[in-house]
Amino acid sequence: MRSVAAGAPAQRLALVRTENHATVFCCDSVEVETNTAPEFVDITEQVESVVAASGVRFGQATVYSTHTTAAVKINENEPLLLKDMARALDQAASCEADYHHNDFSRRTANMDDDECPNGHAHCQHLFLPTSETIPILDGKLTLGQWQRVFLVELDRPKRRRVLVNVLGVCED
Amino acid sequence: MRSVAAGAPAQRLALVRTENHATVFCCDSVEVETNTAPEFVDITEQVESVVAASGVRFGQATVYSTHTTAAVKINENEPLLLKDMARALDQAASCEADYHHNDFSRRTANMDDDECPNGHAHCQHLFLPTSETIPILDGKLTLGQWQRVFLVELDRPKRRRVLVNVLGVCED
Amino acid sequence: MRSVAAGAPAQRLALVRTENHATVFCCDSVEVETNTAPEFVDITEQVESVVAASGVRFGQATVYSTHTTAAVKINENEPLLLKDMARALDQAASCEADYHHNDFSRRTANMDDDECPNGHAHCQHLFLPTSETIPILDGKLTLGQWQRVFLVELDRPKRRRVLVNVLGVCED
Repeated sequence: MRSVAAGAPAQRLALVRTENHATVFCCDSVEVETNTAPEFVDITEQVESVVAASGVRFGQATVYSTHTTAAVKINENEPLLLKDMARALDQAASCEADYHHNDFSRRTANMDDDECPNGHAHCQHLFLPTSETIPILDGKLTLGQWQRVFLVELDRPKRRRVLVNVLGVCED
Repeated sequence: MRSVAAGAPAQRLALVRTENHATVFCCDSVEVETNTAPEFVDITEQVESVVAASGVRFGQATVYSTHTTAAVKINENEPLLLKDMARALDQAASCEADYHHNDFSRRTANMDDDECPNGHAHCQHLFLPTSETIPILDGKLTLGQWQRVFLVELDRPKRRRVLVNVLGVCED
Repeated sequence: MRSVAAGAPAQRLALVRTENHATVFCCDSVEVETNTAPEFVDITEQVESVVAASGVRFGQATVYSTHTTAAVKINENEPLLLKDMARALDQAASCEADYHHNDFSRRTANMDDDECPNGHAHCQHLFLPTSETIPILDGKLTLGQWQRVFLVELDRPKRRRVLVNVLGVCED
């Protein structure tokens, strides 16, 4: 473990000025039905489709979860790894532990009609992002070789909503 | 725990081209006095005010903590849950544990006049975001039903500074 | 641990409309050779150089890791603290533990020619960001006093690629 000032200069990949190009702001909603928890739902193709449909050539896409017990995470889609990450989430905040949030005899705030004990899901979410922002180059997300975009369900089977907010310049 | 390619196509919520609209870049500072640690300071109303004052109709707001022992987190503001999340932070990096960073007999770098042992606060911060980016639709943050924006104090009572960076298009 | 509605109003730092200014979208690649793991590679100077070269006065820079076992983190560059954070990562997902992802007798997906056991690196990455977005004011990143931008190597010595995506307005 070290801290080094890495030496190589940055390499310019793109620079676009908007005099001759329109700037576009585009927001799409991706709806996901989850089946269990934790569940890593690979939404990469949907995010790629939103970017393609936006017509944006250079800019960025922000993937945003509108939920407090479902997160956005970029990692690898390898089935055995997803089992490892599910275990890591349980070690961070076990669904077997006690949570004040689950004590409906004391709790008065934010009670839903179908309230279920989900303190572990909130506490797992504490350590995961709500949003990630991915650059767009030549009309494509700059995902690395193994990177996939997941909605991570932490609670229970639910209908979830992810927003994909794209902004940048079109070439036309 | 599964990985599925969710099926529904994305739904377009907004697409604006800037030919007839001005693009706005706006950065406001929100100052917060914290009282204890960990403390979840709900700054949602201030962030909403910044967005409203910017005049931006479509775009995004990035909420950014300028600190290394205070983070930005989006989750639910339910008092019992905040106690659970405080405990989860302590389990991730206890304020009772030993930290090299707290050994002022060995440490020479980045020593402040009023340096206090805060290794646990940095290590808790390691697992939390410094920034979150939230889409703006029709002039409003797209926060889900239970989502609130927090500055999370991890260190001790301090004066903290959060930047809200809004960019997007105005309608006028 | 409390949740308070902090009182002070936000302070406007900048508001620029693009009628008389060009909007710029700029993406640079920063290449980093890592030497060990975990390693916190301080890339702040490279990110600052990209921002300066872009000519952007007001806007934002997104720092994006194109990897699933290397993350982006903003924290303090203090050598003893980096040791503490390395230990915190190991506590979150130890390199000594067993991972399904490392069982090459069962695994069939995403196998590279030089595949190494790195389940711990993915599980540590689960709790760290892939991207952070930093506001730009007056041509400079708004980093706080102790904030430095790191690429965090979690796997083993590798060639890594970080994208710095800058967007905003120039003054000219």
